[in-house]
Amino acid sequence: MTKTNTGNFFEDFALGQVIRHATPRTLTTGDVALYSALYGTRFAVQSADTFAEAIGYPRAPVDDLLVFHVVFGKTVPDISLNAVANLGYAGGRFLAPVYPGDTLTAVSEVIGLRENSNGQSGVVYVRSTGFNQDGTEVVDYVRWVMVRKRDPNAVVAETHIPTLPAALAADALGDAVPPLDGDAWRFDLSGSPYRFADYEVGERIDHVDGTTVEEAEHMTATRLYQNTAKVHFNQYTEGQGRFGRRLIYGGHVISIARALSFNGLSNAFHVAGINGGRHVAPLFAGQTVFAWSEILDVQEISGRDDVGALRLRTIATKDQPCAELPLKTGDEYDPGVILDLDYWVLIPR
Amino acid sequence: MTKTNTGNFFEDFALGQVIRHATPRTLTTGDVALYSALYGTRFAVQSADTFAEAIGYPRAPVDDLLVFHVVFGKTVPDISLNAVANLGYAGGRFLAPVYPGDTLTAVSEVIGLRENSNGQSGVVYVRSTGFNQDGTEVVDYVRWVMVRKRDPNAVVAETHIPTLPAALAADALGDAVPPLDGDAWRFDLSGSPYRFADYEVGERIDHVDGTTVEEAEHMTATRLYQNTAKVHFNQYTEGQGRFGRRLIYGGHVISIARALSFNGLSNAFHVAGINGGRHVAPLFAGQTVFAWSEILDVQEISGRDDVGALRLRTIATKDQPCAELPLKTGDEYDPGVILDLDYWVLIPR
Amino acid sequence: MTKTNTGNFFEDFALGQVIRHATPRTLTTGDVALYSALYGTRFAVQSADTFAEAIGYPRAPVDDLLVFHVVFGKTVPDISLNAVANLGYAGGRFLAPVYPGDTLTAVSEVIGLRENSNGQSGVVYVRSTGFNQDGTEVVDYVRWVMVRKRDPNAVVAETHIPTLPAALAADALGDAVPPLDGDAWRFDLSGSPYRFADYEVGERIDHVDGTTVEEAEHMTATRLYQNTAKVHFNQYTEGQGRFGRRLIYGGHVISIARALSFNGLSNAFHVAGINGGRHVAPLFAGQTVFAWSEILDVQEISGRDDVGALRLRTIATKDQPCAELPLKTGDEYDPGVILDLDYWVLIPR
Repeated sequence: MTKTNTGNFFEDFALGQVIRHATPRTLTTGDVALYSALYGTRFAVQSADTFAEAIGYPRAPVDDLLVFHVVFGKTVPDISLNAVANLGYAGGRFLAPVYPGDTLTAVSEVIGLRENSNGQSGVVYVRSTGFNQDGTEVVDYVRWVMVRKRDPNAVVAETHIPTLPAALAADALGDAVPPLDGDAWRFDLSGSPYRFADYEVGERIDHVDGTTVEEAEHMTATRLYQNTAKVHFNQYTEGQGRFGRRLIYGGHVISIARALSFNGLSNAFHVAGINGGRHVAPLFAGQTVFAWSEILDVQEISGRDDVGALRLRTIATKDQPCAELPLKTGDEYDPGVILDLDYWVLIPR
Repeated sequence: MTKTNTGNFFEDFALGQVIRHATPRTLTTGDVALYSALYGTRFAVQSADTFAEAIGYPRAPVDDLLVFHVVFGKTVPDISLNAVANLGYAGGRFLAPVYPGDTLTAVSEVIGLRENSNGQSGVVYVRSTGFNQDGTEVVDYVRWVMVRKRDPNAVVAETHIPTLPAALAADALGDAVPPLDGDAWRFDLSGSPYRFADYEVGERIDHVDGTTVEEAEHMTATRLYQNTAKVHFNQYTEGQGRFGRRLIYGGHVISIARALSFNGLSNAFHVAGINGGRHVAPLFAGQTVFAWSEILDVQEISGRDDVGALRLRTIATKDQPCAELPLKTGDEYDPGVILDLDYWVLIPR
Repeated sequence: MTKTNTGNFFEDFALGQVIRHATPRTLTTGDVALYSALYGTRFAVQSADTFAEAIGYPRAPVDDLLVFHVVFGKTVPDISLNAVANLGYAGGRFLAPVYPGDTLTAVSEVIGLRENSNGQSGVVYVRSTGFNQDGTEVVDYVRWVMVRKRDPNAVVAETHIPTLPAALAADALGDAVPPLDGDAWRFDLSGSPYRFADYEVGERIDHVDGTTVEEAEHMTATRLYQNTAKVHFNQYTEGQGRFGRRLIYGGHVISIARALSFNGLSNAFHVAGINGGRHVAPLFAGQTVFAWSEILDVQEISGRDDVGALRLRTIATKDQPCAELPLKTGDEYDPGVILDLDYWVLIPR
C-alpha cells in the first residue's frame, strides 16, 4: 500500500463529512513582505503599523487575501487534488483579523454532492473554515469543484445541492475590523481622498495599470500558500497536456486584480466578503493582467459609523487594457476576460 | 471625474510645493531577507545582529539602499508617473539608521522647474525626504526628471534651476552611523582585511563577478519598493514601445553594483551619501551586470576616529566584463556602460 | 595588488589549516518565509509555532537544510571559488536547533589533500562547522572538492586522504531535537498517519509530484544563502562555457527533493544526518525535478523513545517521473538521475 497521498476522488466524499487539513502555518512578517513583493500592494492599513495603530488596530493586519490563499492552500490536498475544474466560490466572510505570529489551520465540511450524468465525475461543495491558534474563525467560504471518480462504477447515493446566498448582506460584514477612529485616517497617506460617500452604484473605474506575470512569480506565490495543485508547478506534465503550459493559480489573479484596484479604490482597505467568483479563462506566464471595477452596491453597516461597504464587481483581463471596460457580448464573455469577481470591501465613512 | 491617479504633469508643479506621498511602509526582517535574496549582499553589519551589536549598533540596520528605494518608490506616483526620463540625483544623505520595525514615509518639495523649449515637457527638481515613525529624517536627496505636459499650451511662468553641490563634503556624512568600537570589528568575519588607510585616491578595483537579471527578479524588487512606474511591469504595453521590452528600475542596477562591490570593498559597510548618478543606458532582463570602482577621494570625518569616508565612482556594465575598466572614449560612454555613480561610503579606520 | 578575493587554489591549502569564513548571518522569519516560498515545504514542525510548541520545541525551528545551505554558502569564497567539481559530502550532523534570530558563522578545517596526477588540480577535504551566536555547533559535515592549482609547477608536499564513515550511526543522531511529547503530535495536522513503525527496510516510495525550476528561483535561493559560486549567476560567462547555461546549485536540488518527499514521508520532520551525496548530473532552468526514496535502514536511538531514525536514499531526476523508480542500469546511472542522497531523518515513534 502506498504512503503517498493520492487525494480524494468523488466517491470518497460524504455529505456532512468533516476534514481537518494539514499543515498548520504560522504567518510572519516574512510572509507579509513576500506578499507585498509579489503583488506590490499599497493599501496603507496593511502596509504600515503606524497607520493601522492610529486608526485602532493593534498593528498592521495581514492582507485578507493572503489569509484566504493560505487557508485555501490547505484544502487542496484533500479536496481538489483530483479536480477537473474549480467551479465557484460563495459566501466568503472574513471573521477576525490575522496578525503576524498567528497560526492558521483549516477544516472543511462537505455540504453538497452531485454526480455528473456521465458517471466520470461529480461536483463537491465544501464549506472551508480557517482558524487561528486560539480556535477563532478567521475566514470561511464555500467553494465547489468538479472532482473525478476513481471508479466510474462506484455508486454515490447522495445528491444534495446546497442553497447558497447570491450575496452576503452588508450587516454580515466587518467582523475582522475593530472599531476605527475615522478622524485618524490620513487621506494624504492612504493614496486618495475618496471615502464611502464618494462612490455610487453603477460607477465604473478602469484601474489603468497592467502587470505581466512570470513563471517564477506565480509558482513562488502558490508555494508560499502551500497549495499543492500539480498544474501550477510541473511543466514536464503540463507541457504534454491541454494547454501545453503551467496554469496559474486563480487566486494569484485575484490578488493581482486587488492590487491593481488600489488605483481608484485606495481607501477600500479591507476585503470583507466574497459573494462569488468565476475564473472565466486561464492565465499563463508572459501574459499581462489588467482590471476594472463596477460599484454594484453601496451599503451602510448597522451599528457602525466608521466604515461602509462597497459591493464591487472586478473584472480582470489578459493582454487587454480595460479602458473600454470589456465584459460580455450577449451571454459570452469578451475575449481577454479571465476573472469575474463579486465581493465586498470596506471603506471609511 | 475619474478616481484614478493619472499623476502630475509638468504644469501641475509649482516652486515650493510640498507633496506628502502615500503609502507609509513598515520595514521588517521580511523585507531584509528579500533584499538579501534579490542581491546576495554580504556586508557583515547589515547581515548579522551580532556583528552590528559588537561594534555599537543596537541591532543590524536595514541596508541603506533598501531605505533609499522605498522612499524613492513613494515619490513615483506623484512625481514621475508621467516622466520621460529620470535625469539625475544629487546631494543624497543618509541621516539616521533604519531598523526592522521602523515605518517610512516621504515628502517632496519642488525646488526647481524649467520648461523645455519645445513646450512638450519640462524638468522638475525635487528634494525628497524620508522619515521614520518618530518624524526623524532618515534620507534625503535631490532628483530631477523630465515630465510631460498634459497640455502643450499650458503656461508655466516659473523657471528656477537650483544650485546643487557637485559632491557632499565628508563632514556632512555619518549621521546614520552611531559611534563605533573599531576594536570590535572582526576583519576575519567581514570578508577582507582592508580598512580606511588601505585605499588611495585613483585606485581602481574590478569587482570581477557578474550577475544576470531575470524579469521576475527586477519586478519583485520594484514591487517590494512599491514603485509603480509602469515601464517596469507591463510587457503588453512596453512590447509595443521603444524598446519592445520592460525597462529595469535603475535602482535595481545600483543595488546589484553595490552587492558586486563587496568583492574589493568588503568593509565599506555604509553608503553615506550619493553625490550624483547617471543611468547611461537601460538594462533588460537576460543581460548580465558587471561593475568596477575608482577611489575618487579619501577623507577623514571631523570628530570621528572610528570611520573614514571613501568617495567612489562605480561603473556598471551589461554583457561586458570589467577587467579593462570600461568607461569612456572621448566624451562617449563605452558600449556596455549602464551606470555611472558617484557616492560616499564609510569604512573602519 | 588586488583587493579582490580570487579564492584559494589547491596549493594554498595546508593540512590542519583552519579557515574562519565571512559573513555572519542572522536568520529571521523572513528567511523562513522565503525558504517556504522557494520550496513549498509542508513539514508541520517547521511550518507552525503551535505545532512545534505542543511537542516540546520553544518555537518552530528553522528548516535543517536552510541551516546547511547558509553554512555551506559561507565556505564557498574560501574553499570552492576555484573548484572544478564538488565531489561529495559525508558525516553531516545537525547538532543543535536553530531558531529565527540566531546568527550563524562557519569555520572549516582542511582534513585531507591529494594532488591529481596531471598536476593541474587536487582534491581538498574540509570539515566545515556552523556555529550559532553562543558558539554552539549547529551543523558539521565533510565535503571534498577538486580545486585548480594556480601554478601547475607548485609543489604540494602533503597527501592525506581522511577516513570517512560510510554512514553515521543512529545513536549519533538527534542532538538538534529536544525531547518530544509524542502524545501531542497531531497526525491529522501533520499530513499522514505514518510513524516510525510503519516504515520498513527496502520500502520504496515514489513522491509523485514534479516541480519545474526557473532561473529566478534558483538564483534567489542561492543568493539567500550568500553562496557566491559564479556558475549559478552569470549567463554571460556560462553562455560561453561547457553547458551554455547557468548551473543550478546542487543544494537547491536537495531542498526540492526534500520538499517533494513530504508526499510519503510527512512525519519525517527532521534531517538529522547526511551520510553521503552525489550530484550525478547538472540541473538547468526549465527542467522538472521528480524524486523517489528507499528506506535503507530503520533504527531506534539509544535513550530516546520519542523518535526513531529512518535512513533514506532519495533519488532525484529531471524530466523523468519516478513511478518506475529509475536508478542504475549496471554501474551507470539511468538517464535523468541527478541526485543520489543518503541521509537520516527522524520520525515520531
